[in-house]
Amino acid sequence: MVKFEGACIFGQSGGPTSAINASAAGVIQEALKQESITAVYGAAHGIKGILNEQFYDMSKENNEELNLLKTTPSSALGSVRYKLKDSSVDDTDYKKLLEVFKKYNIRYFFYNGGNDSMDTCNKISKYMQKVGYDCRVMGVPKTIDNDLYGTDHCPGYGSAAKYIATSTMEVFLDARVYDTGMITILEVMGRNAGWLTASTALASKYDHGPDLIYLPELDFDMEKFLQETVSIYNKNKKVIVAVSEGAKTKDGAYIAELGSNLSKDSFGHSQLGGTASILANVVKKETNAKVRAIEFSLLQRCAAHISSLTDINESYLAGQMAVKYAVEGKTDQMVAFERAEGSEYKCNIKLMNLTDVANTEKKIPREWINDNGNNLTDDYINYALPLIQGESRPPIVDGLPRFSKLKKIFAKM
Amino acid sequence: MVKFEGACIFGQSGGPTSAINASAAGVIQEALKQESITAVYGAAHGIKGILNEQFYDMSKENNEELNLLKTTPSSALGSVRYKLKDSSVDDTDYKKLLEVFKKYNIRYFFYNGGNDSMDTCNKISKYMQKVGYDCRVMGVPKTIDNDLYGTDHCPGYGSAAKYIATSTMEVFLDARVYDTGMITILEVMGRNAGWLTASTALASKYDHGPDLIYLPELDFDMEKFLQETVSIYNKNKKVIVAVSEGAKTKDGAYIAELGSNLSKDSFGHSQLGGTASILANVVKKETNAKVRAIEFSLLQRCAAHISSLTDINESYLAGQMAVKYAVEGKTDQMVAFERAEGSEYKCNIKLMNLTDVANTEKKIPREWINDNGNNLTDDYINYALPLIQGESRPPIVDGLPRFSKLKKIFAKM
Repeated sequence: MVKFEGACIFGQSGGPTSAINASAAGVIQEALKQESITAVYGAAHGIKGILNEQFYDMSKENNEELNLLKTTPSSALGSVRYKLKDSSVDDTDYKKLLEVFKKYNIRYFFYNGGNDSMDTCNKISKYMQKVGYDCRVMGVPKTIDNDLYGTDHCPGYGSAAKYIATSTMEVFLDARVYDTGMITILEVMGRNAGWLTASTALASKYDHGPDLIYLPELDFDMEKFLQETVSIYNKNKKVIVAVSEGAKTKDGAYIAELGSNLSKDSFGHSQLGGTASILANVVKKETNAKVRAIEFSLLQRCAAHISSLTDINESYLAGQMAVKYAVEGKTDQMVAFERAEGSEYKCNIKLMNLTDVANTEKKIPREWINDNGNNLTDDYINYALPLIQGESRPPIVDGLPRFSKLKKIFAKM
Repeated sequence: MVKFEGACIFGQSGGPTSAINASAAGVIQEALKQESITAVYGAAHGIKGILNEQFYDMSKENNEELNLLKTTPSSALGSVRYKLKDSSVDDTDYKKLLEVFKKYNIRYFFYNGGNDSMDTCNKISKYMQKVGYDCRVMGVPKTIDNDLYGTDHCPGYGSAAKYIATSTMEVFLDARVYDTGMITILEVMGRNAGWLTASTALASKYDHGPDLIYLPELDFDMEKFLQETVSIYNKNKKVIVAVSEGAKTKDGAYIAELGSNLSKDSFGHSQLGGTASILANVVKKETNAKVRAIEFSLLQRCAAHISSLTDINESYLAGQMAVKYAVEGKTDQMVAFERAEGSEYKCNIKLMNLTDVANTEKKIPREWINDNGNNLTDDYINYALPLIQGESRPPIVDGLPRFSKLKKIFAKM
């Protein structure tokens, strides 16, 4: 049997998270250990870095800094949003990729990202097969949106959920200090799937959760929202509402887009802004209550100071196992999680065909949303709670986190 | 000598912080220990709770829950914004207070808050003196704004600064993942004093700080802001700007208020929203860059999950010492901090006359702001860095913080 060996390249793609660098550490540290991997490259800005032959020689990095990647948010190698055309339509990029792969004898390709990135990964895998270039291609999942098909959950989700649930509890307490009325609208990321917004419900475990939660899985009905919010306000004087940035009316219009029309009707002028501030204005007009809109914004995806250790460990493992499987001969797959049966939480690694994963979105099942469509059931809590367990925090130096600093030395032929 | 004894009452006032409950714990736990204090009452919603005879019997609380106050954000007893009239103008409230004090034999009054609350505390102190009611009145400082006169710094500031600096570092990394341009505008609390906005500069210690910082201490010049931001954008493609919500033009208009006029000029429609989103729109129009506005909003004052241990310990101490001093016979004073000379950080407790503290604001000295008026000098860093040292975190149960739950049993005569 001919020994299969060659260089590997790893890329990060799509929106960054608190956990994607943990997967990078898993891939890189495992790849550096493998005899059959002759060089370990990190692509600058994902696929773009490969196309432009801009990648770093990861063997030049200090192992301590690679360890620190586990607690460093954002994408340390740089990320990209780049959609490859179908190779049947335009194979320019593919030809260039093949040329680079050949030039550097790249035989392992690891790509870390969400739906779009798995599509990229899948297309490259299929192209390499088609042209007969022997290369093992593995997807490593990542998305705070938690919407990848076929895996129990996605690396990055648990940490974002932990931040969101914790911050919701803190805001809940803050919003209750005065004996006057107050309505707080929390806006959480998620264009099509409500997993992140749902995580505010975890705060309800300590009775510090939102009164109402609106997910993009269900049509957003402004009248219903107003009626439900005002009804709680009249009873309790305090209301906390969590809403997905992706909340849409039954006509498919985002609330955030509705903004200008809505505000023109209500206030006689246009209004730009996010979903929460638009809803805040609408509810303010109805109640004249003190209303506050809070967007978790980028903070929810980069708050490495309060990551889930379960998530960080699994993210690392996903990267590590991608390398191990590839070395064993697997290709054209994405690493995924499968939850073991039983009352104690345990997730096993499994492999999914890239074809099956690419571009398929997983949403929250209807039965995990309550009948009124404004909160989550215990099924969701039982699903999500294990994912936020354990504390992962960056080391603190002089009162502030010490994040990884890579040398990023460009690889040369 | 007649033994001085009686009940004490403690109230929380003004905006909540991550640290104000630590002062509550300090006052309550110390008062419960003192023989000369016959009962310990916690006012529901500050002065309002005294006027309405709504206060809790703190001896009924579990000591464990009182301990948990140290890591619980918001105001556990409820807060209030209530401005007492001058007793010479209208003494209705004062008479009611005196009546309640007499009824419950309240001989110690501890009031925890910022500028306005020290004004309240001062007025009550002076009134009780005037009418010859023997009562020891002590102010306990609190404000994330850090703008109380006469004290080196204020309880609550260190924790908010630590959250802001950490989040700035995380956003800095997040905002740099793509190789495309991006301008990020961070909006930080502070209407008149820029202490909180200045704390973003702490992130610069690890080169993860903002490029530009605009404080309300200096007039905000839109042309200068645009020119400085665009110049860095053209050079680096990435810009992070931190701005105080209280940034004002030389005519004294808040940027947030300017909004509607500004946006009408630029976009032909009105624009509500915060300072950051208005600046984001202005800079977007100029550069057409990707621009993101992030408001730290309430999160910056309630993020107990990442408090400064130095701050929490000092906040507790401030409460505790207020009680000890009062028992020793002091009155009409506010507990304050005085930084000891020497290279190692140490703060001693001192006492300030309430008259001197009430309603005086402390701003950032001009010489701590750089010549260009768009960043802080090392003087500020050296001042602030000791205040964010050490990690105070709530105990975690099931992945989420376990905050204090008080029984809040109303005191009865």
